[in-house]
Amino acid sequence: MNNKILIFGSMALDTIETPFGKRANILGGSATHAAISASYFTTPIIVSVVGEDFPDEHVQLLKKNKINIKNLQRKKGKTFAWEARYGNNPNEREVLATYENVLRDYSPLLLPEHQKIKYVFLANNSPASQTILLDQLKSVKLVVWDTMTFWIERYIDQILKILPRVDVALFNDSEAMHFSKETNLIKAGKKILSKGVKKGVVIKKGEHGSFLFTHSFTMHLPAYPIEEVKDPTGAGDSFAGGFIGFLAKTGEVSDKSLKKAMAYGTIMASLTVEEFGADRFKKLEKKDIRKRFFELKKIIGF
Amino acid sequence: MNNKILIFGSMALDTIETPFGKRANILGGSATHAAISASYFTTPIIVSVVGEDFPDEHVQLLKKNKINIKNLQRKKGKTFAWEARYGNNPNEREVLATYENVLRDYSPLLLPEHQKIKYVFLANNSPASQTILLDQLKSVKLVVWDTMTFWIERYIDQILKILPRVDVALFNDSEAMHFSKETNLIKAGKKILSKGVKKGVVIKKGEHGSFLFTHSFTMHLPAYPIEEVKDPTGAGDSFAGGFIGFLAKTGEVSDKSLKKAMAYGTIMASLTVEEFGADRFKKLEKKDIRKRFFELKKIIGF
Repeated sequence: MNNKILIFGSMALDTIETPFGKRANILGGSATHAAISASYFTTPIIVSVVGEDFPDEHVQLLKKNKINIKNLQRKKGKTFAWEARYGNNPNEREVLATYENVLRDYSPLLLPEHQKIKYVFLANNSPASQTILLDQLKSVKLVVWDTMTFWIERYIDQILKILPRVDVALFNDSEAMHFSKETNLIKAGKKILSKGVKKGVVIKKGEHGSFLFTHSFTMHLPAYPIEEVKDPTGAGDSFAGGFIGFLAKTGEVSDKSLKKAMAYGTIMASLTVEEFGADRFKKLEKKDIRKRFFELKKIIGF
Repeated sequence: MNNKILIFGSMALDTIETPFGKRANILGGSATHAAISASYFTTPIIVSVVGEDFPDEHVQLLKKNKINIKNLQRKKGKTFAWEARYGNNPNEREVLATYENVLRDYSPLLLPEHQKIKYVFLANNSPASQTILLDQLKSVKLVVWDTMTFWIERYIDQILKILPRVDVALFNDSEAMHFSKETNLIKAGKKILSKGVKKGVVIKKGEHGSFLFTHSFTMHLPAYPIEEVKDPTGAGDSFAGGFIGFLAKTGEVSDKSLKKAMAYGTIMASLTVEEFGADRFKKLEKKDIRKRFFELKKIIGF
């Protein structure tokens, strides 16, 4: 099938500090990580914006991975930038600074040729802009959606209106607890699902793995074991890219394909964190993903 | 095969407070939880001590589960007692009080008929008393061993001498990090394994599942999803009971049986936490365990 995927999210220049070092102005952003990850499955189309400072080197990596950037706008001003620090627990981070820059007044506008794309990932973004994008879609088949606590705290009503238009909603553990007001993640997942989400709710737990709650089954998958998490940034978006990438590639959304998509999400996240930013993908081949897929099966098997 | 299991650990009267309520003087202790769990697989023999106040009702539950208590000493004085409180995170607890009582001067002495038992679980106890017990074993085949941070902080040298006599060492996540001085659990597990442990190191992560590190493979298993963790006490010991119970029952210690033992450990722990103390086992049948075993397979499958 090889359906293309529309990915709406941020492109950023990240400055990251972890126990393994510090990097400034590296390639980041939710759309970036998701698209690079998805590019190992099918063709991603990025809907986003960058500033005049966005380095050509970064554009080249996207092109090398055959990511369609026709719907990527380049505006006057600076690219969205973000600074964060991680300690020894990769599940916890401190955001040091956020510079909205060109993202501030950006409203997504789909090129006519992209309005009939069937597979869409709405990465972390304001619910208002996510709604604007959803309204431009003319024959969508699968919407995967992400958010973060910042939006949950401020725009819960808008999010509750988006959820019934979403097939699979992604949360990390703290976001899910925040949104559902439940401390048990199984209760949290089921409660969010009951808000009208069409197919499933994924709760990502970083090094502890992830849950998938659907109307017919629950899945609990451990993480692929990584000894050195050099930079956790983008793990969630890489998960999403692998998840929707696999579904778009096969063109089938069934219980079985959703479970496999969870495994591919898990694997893409495990790869991302092995290097800073998107560095791991500079030398990643499809066979590395396939190998890890079978290893994950072995690691959990009994 | 149905090999019997020797279980050396504490028997206690627990006072527990969780978001689901409070119970005073309920049946507790590491040997108790492990033995009740193991009793669904084979015959456990408890090596422990209680005081004059130990209620007959508790003895009856042990007898009902065909637990051998010939090596259980009843001494003058009060039973070991323990008080703890759990908040919304079941992986964190506050110990409010510990009363050693009859445990203070207790040294385990095996009846001659128990010295040739092949399967042994050394539940949490002082490394000194664990060594005394190990020295009395004449034809042991499999030693599963547990400890806690209290002993790691005080008797690291003794523990390092015990580990090469141990087939499988159990830690929870914080104990493993403490012992290994590693924050990454995969590094922690491998480092502990390198201290001479014969077969494997298990790291239990509560609601997040568990790891098994052996000299030939790594396993990462999620927890069986439980929506209401009423009382997390004894989950680790129930895990151990199911783990060694399955191995003793089959009489085979191979990669394959170790993996299945992990699954049975996971399931016994998931049952324990559904009620206070050992209450869940008052009405548990073998078919409930079998059912959950196959459910766990489905929950992780892709």
